Amino acid sequence: MKLKPKHIQISSGGPYVAILNLKDCEDNDIHRGDRIQIYSKSKSVVAIVDTTMDDSFVAQGEIGFTYEISKKLRVTNPVSVEPMGKPYSLKHIRKKLDGSKLTKKEIFEIISDIVNNKLSEVEIAYFAAAGYVRKFSFEETVALTEAMVNTGSILNLNSKIVLDKHCIGGVAGNRTTMLIVPILASLGFVVPKTSSRSITSPAGTADTMEVLANVALDLKTVKRVVEKTNGCIVWGGALSLAPADDAIIRVEHPLAIDAVGQMIASVLAKKKSVSSTHVLIDVPYGRGSKVSDLRKAKKLAELFVAVGKRIGLKIKVVFTAGKEPVGNGIGPALEARDVLYVLMNHENQPLDLREKALMLAGNLIELATRKKNGYRLAKKALDSGLAYRKMIEIIKAQGKKVTRPQEITLSEDYFDAKVSNSGIISYLNNRLISELALTAGAPKDKRAGIYLFKHTKQTIKKGETLFRVYAENPKKLAFAKEFYERNKKHFIELK
Amino acid sequence: MKLKPKHIQISSGGPYVAILNLKDCEDNDIHRGDRIQIYSKSKSVVAIVDTTMDDSFVAQGEIGFTYEISKKLRVTNPVSVEPMGKPYSLKHIRKKLDGSKLTKKEIFEIISDIVNNKLSEVEIAYFAAAGYVRKFSFEETVALTEAMVNTGSILNLNSKIVLDKHCIGGVAGNRTTMLIVPILASLGFVVPKTSSRSITSPAGTADTMEVLANVALDLKTVKRVVEKTNGCIVWGGALSLAPADDAIIRVEHPLAIDAVGQMIASVLAKKKSVSSTHVLIDVPYGRGSKVSDLRKAKKLAELFVAVGKRIGLKIKVVFTAGKEPVGNGIGPALEARDVLYVLMNHENQPLDLREKALMLAGNLIELATRKKNGYRLAKKALDSGLAYRKMIEIIKAQGKKVTRPQEITLSEDYFDAKVSNSGIISYLNNRLISELALTAGAPKDKRAGIYLFKHTKQTIKKGETLFRVYAENPKKLAFAKEFYERNKKHFIELK
Repeated sequence: MKLKPKHIQISSGGPYVAILNLKDCEDNDIHRGDRIQIYSKSKSVVAIVDTTMDDSFVAQGEIGFTYEISKKLRVTNPVSVEPMGKPYSLKHIRKKLDGSKLTKKEIFEIISDIVNNKLSEVEIAYFAAAGYVRKFSFEETVALTEAMVNTGSILNLNSKIVLDKHCIGGVAGNRTTMLIVPILASLGFVVPKTSSRSITSPAGTADTMEVLANVALDLKTVKRVVEKTNGCIVWGGALSLAPADDAIIRVEHPLAIDAVGQMIASVLAKKKSVSSTHVLIDVPYGRGSKVSDLRKAKKLAELFVAVGKRIGLKIKVVFTAGKEPVGNGIGPALEARDVLYVLMNHENQPLDLREKALMLAGNLIELATRKKNGYRLAKKALDSGLAYRKMIEIIKAQGKKVTRPQEITLSEDYFDAKVSNSGIISYLNNRLISELALTAGAPKDKRAGIYLFKHTKQTIKKGETLFRVYAENPKKLAFAKEFYERNKKHFIELK
Repeated sequence: MKLKPKHIQISSGGPYVAILNLKDCEDNDIHRGDRIQIYSKSKSVVAIVDTTMDDSFVAQGEIGFTYEISKKLRVTNPVSVEPMGKPYSLKHIRKKLDGSKLTKKEIFEIISDIVNNKLSEVEIAYFAAAGYVRKFSFEETVALTEAMVNTGSILNLNSKIVLDKHCIGGVAGNRTTMLIVPILASLGFVVPKTSSRSITSPAGTADTMEVLANVALDLKTVKRVVEKTNGCIVWGGALSLAPADDAIIRVEHPLAIDAVGQMIASVLAKKKSVSSTHVLIDVPYGRGSKVSDLRKAKKLAELFVAVGKRIGLKIKVVFTAGKEPVGNGIGPALEARDVLYVLMNHENQPLDLREKALMLAGNLIELATRKKNGYRLAKKALDSGLAYRKMIEIIKAQGKKVTRPQEITLSEDYFDAKVSNSGIISYLNNRLISELALTAGAPKDKRAGIYLFKHTKQTIKKGETLFRVYAENPKKLAFAKEFYERNKKHFIELK
């Protein structure tokens, strides 16, 4: 049937959803949730049907395009609409849910249908649930990674060696990427770093870098930045690298499930998509972090290395202390300021962040060069100011906002958390500190967050300030205060 | 925040979805997929947020109500909107997905949140997946049934004994309910039968009864019909009996999953909600039906009886032949005509349908009376014309359309399927026949479907017509013809 497009600017949040008048649906035996193919000259998309009874919204003879379809089909002339059967990939998802292993071809069909918006969010959720409950085998994980890479865009770089790093997360602060990239790029290595925005933490690398520079670049611009400066620190979300991954993560979010195979595929597909060759993975472990002990961390590492090998990535995994925040600032502006302090060798620099970044950069250099002087090279790049100058170059190439810490002003809405006993700090509760920063408005409110005055192993006296909590508006500050008061006892352990 | 409602008449298909302007969301830190509570004077609903960038669609200061919310909150004055946290029930769903058993309280919270629209379809899908993969224990199944009953409406009847039947489906034709109800009601038993519309079959009981009478009655009208006639045959979907069940079945549909515990809870909750006391379950088994063999059928039966006992239902299970269609007609109009033929003792009546209905009615009478003359009583009711007169009474009470078979006109668009060999029919492919009827337009097109001239064990000669396929429009007839030609060889086996 022929229908006239009506662009209605509701976002479905991902899948292509088209809205049809109920009468047209009844006449053509189309039901809500069915798939249709929409043709407009040379282009076509598969969309999922939603229905309306309101003629003034979408009349008979019209088809409502949600924002996602409008972006793809910018047409006003009538389009052809044909009902479609269910995609075969539903059978594969059912098969996995039933406990059978999937073949490479079946996994490719699922991932390809996700990318082409042929599966609804409910259907993708079943795939996520199946992978979570039934686990992905090694071969399935490899197939999943390859399918994700092959159904997305690729950043092609003219370099034999391309470095990358990833941290599996769960530690507040910990903004090492923004140090490692300029260090390595200043030494001549190519480091096209794409990062995510925060989903559940007070700041992702993309949120933090955004305080200093534009991060939402398109693939062409990223290529230009990397060719000019050797490096970049950009938001991966705008680049359509392994886009199936984003769709799966979106449906995993409500239940916060995170299947190991899916996580490994997700990380490595993003790396492979930017043509990386050598990848360092930071696995923080211990109380309060994502991986509870070293045994689990090592098992995860083995899997990373083995899958990496199969898809042509040299991988090294380092295990780091995950039980307390790294750096003093938590939240985008506060973390960005820490990064600049370290790059400038400023007296306010958090030494733990500096040391961790040097260690990681050193390891990555050694993985790429097979020499033993990685740490020394990294330290020289940092101490000499080369890394800072490289960072300014990168910031300018991406679209400058800020290059000096004093340009980052902090909010005047804050309160201080003071301790009621004296002692040596034996434990700082990572998870609670993150939640407090979130309550104060991070990462959405860039200047909201926490500044830590003390770390573990340091002495603190009764009445001294442990940390300061910043918010951008008084209401959120009040929420944060209330959250702090309610959980006061659990933020710290003394001995 | 205060927002002005805009009723936009898009149906979400179930959950309460509210559309907010993106700017309002950003100002109030609300994201797509978040839950909000909407207050209007004494009423409130929980809705899931969708966002728009189009000010002409939902402007700042407005809130778009999808059809489901509009039905509940018919207001034009500004409403109060408050962001809400994630429901606790998500933790329980995650727990089940992780393989742990749920407590009665946890199951109640999940079911109650489903009924109150606090869970999105993606979240309900995770619950369905968890129940499917991890299975529900006996205690969980009991808790699920009770929770479904207690979160829905109840049909209260002034009768100590209330009869009901259910067929787990999978057999084409098989419209026994429309015979059993008038037979039992004519004998003085109370039979408040609610049925579903077809989801994947050529006709559900509600679709078929709709050819003869109105079936979409409200609870009050159903009560009136039953009090007047002892029986009813209505569509359950309009009654809000165990509504959680409908929401779960909706998300199970794309993958056609059907967890045993969930299925039992679903059936028995509907029965308990109409105050049934004695329930007969028809489990067709064998090649091509839902339950493949007698061993599986018996296991299922034990579970039905045990769960029934716990919630106060006396249950008897009968195992019937599921490998071929029952009756001659397949599709709403054709099946309704068969039913009337049987009730009238007409020469065109399909004897297999008549016999099966008498056997089931007899069993149900014996379950309720503990006497041994069930079949004889049922036969007498049918042969005497009492059952037919009762059916006319019920049809009139529900809202009459048709009471005589000759009022059911068939379509003039049809083709005949003739066989190319002679022999005795040893197998008729249930599943293929159903698919063919669906392709021809059933159940949506009431007069589309198939009329079988021959059944198994009967002799057929080369060139004789096996069945006739009716459609309401030529395009669908062509589709059906094509489907038939492609699968011709598999419809029948001869010996």
